[in-house]
Amino acid sequence: MVVKVYGPAYGAPKRVLLCLLEKEIEFETVPVDINAGENHNPDFLKLQSQGTDLLGKTIEEQGLVNQWLEVEAHRYHPPLFNLELHVMFPDVVVRNEQVIKESEEKLGKVLDVYEDRLSKSKYLAGDFFSLADLSHIPFTCYLVGPIGKGHMIKERKHVSAWWDDISSRPSWLKVLEICK
Amino acid sequence: MVVKVYGPAYGAPKRVLLCLLEKEIEFETVPVDINAGENHNPDFLKLQSQGTDLLGKTIEEQGLVNQWLEVEAHRYHPPLFNLELHVMFPDVVVRNEQVIKESEEKLGKVLDVYEDRLSKSKYLAGDFFSLADLSHIPFTCYLVGPIGKGHMIKERKHVSAWWDDISSRPSWLKVLEICK
Repeated sequence: MVVKVYGPAYGAPKRVLLCLLEKEIEFETVPVDINAGENHNPDFLKLQSQGTDLLGKTIEEQGLVNQWLEVEAHRYHPPLFNLELHVMFPDVVVRNEQVIKESEEKLGKVLDVYEDRLSKSKYLAGDFFSLADLSHIPFTCYLVGPIGKGHMIKERKHVSAWWDDISSRPSWLKVLEICK
Repeated sequence: MVVKVYGPAYGAPKRVLLCLLEKEIEFETVPVDINAGENHNPDFLKLQSQGTDLLGKTIEEQGLVNQWLEVEAHRYHPPLFNLELHVMFPDVVVRNEQVIKESEEKLGKVLDVYEDRLSKSKYLAGDFFSLADLSHIPFTCYLVGPIGKGHMIKERKHVSAWWDDISSRPSWLKVLEICK
């Protein structure tokens, strides 16, 4: 059960081999001869394009995906994570009602920005599901489930429609099945 | 030969599962029960700490690693890649002497900055080998080899010592053996 490195006799994949060797991670290599055009073989191209395009097609779309990933990481996740810790794990951290109150207020303000954004496009980075939406799913599921604050989603019309959409994707239903 | 996801019944690894499912990549899961303290088991900790620490230990070290990775990506690599293209692949791009001349000048100025930096610390991010150094190895090997401009390294005392050191690491010798 090891990592496969395609290439690998070119400058960029050699960086990958170096990392794997320095980190003592087992791997195998699959030769791809660019001079013989093997990088245009359908089987190789399929590796680049299979599944959902999560990163956006144009550079503008890719920029918006990155922008909303940063919003998730630095604005959405921190107060949500505090709610998770203090509501779901009161034995790990000492439950602090002040932290819960402030975190809910902060998250509410962020969700107001989301409501505005999602009134203009179906998903965060535009009219396509992306990594930016995906990164919200696991912890928002805690918010509407064990944290018990689903009203924060439901009371915002566009956020609520977005959540219904992204949380009913087959991939998420499969994750819930794997982790139950 | 599939990816292993440890966890996976926690918020952060669920993001990983979602990505793998959306991209239709096969995986298997390895349960780690945090409540039972299994994340402190030696076998699991070994996965986090094995091999060379490439990213730095303190937040200051990590910042310097990132800074020099950016220097490599945006200052060092572009002129070096132009040299590679125009010297090593004159049939792919039309060899342009002006591009070669300007790229060598640009890279020389960058190497002067490296010379200064490496007179103060053994490696780019400090006195430890890191991902920042590693990322230079494959293409610098082209510079001193097939591009035929090894004098740019040799004529700078500290850059030359740094190159001798990083290019003789067992990991790089192994990559050369794999790719020969």
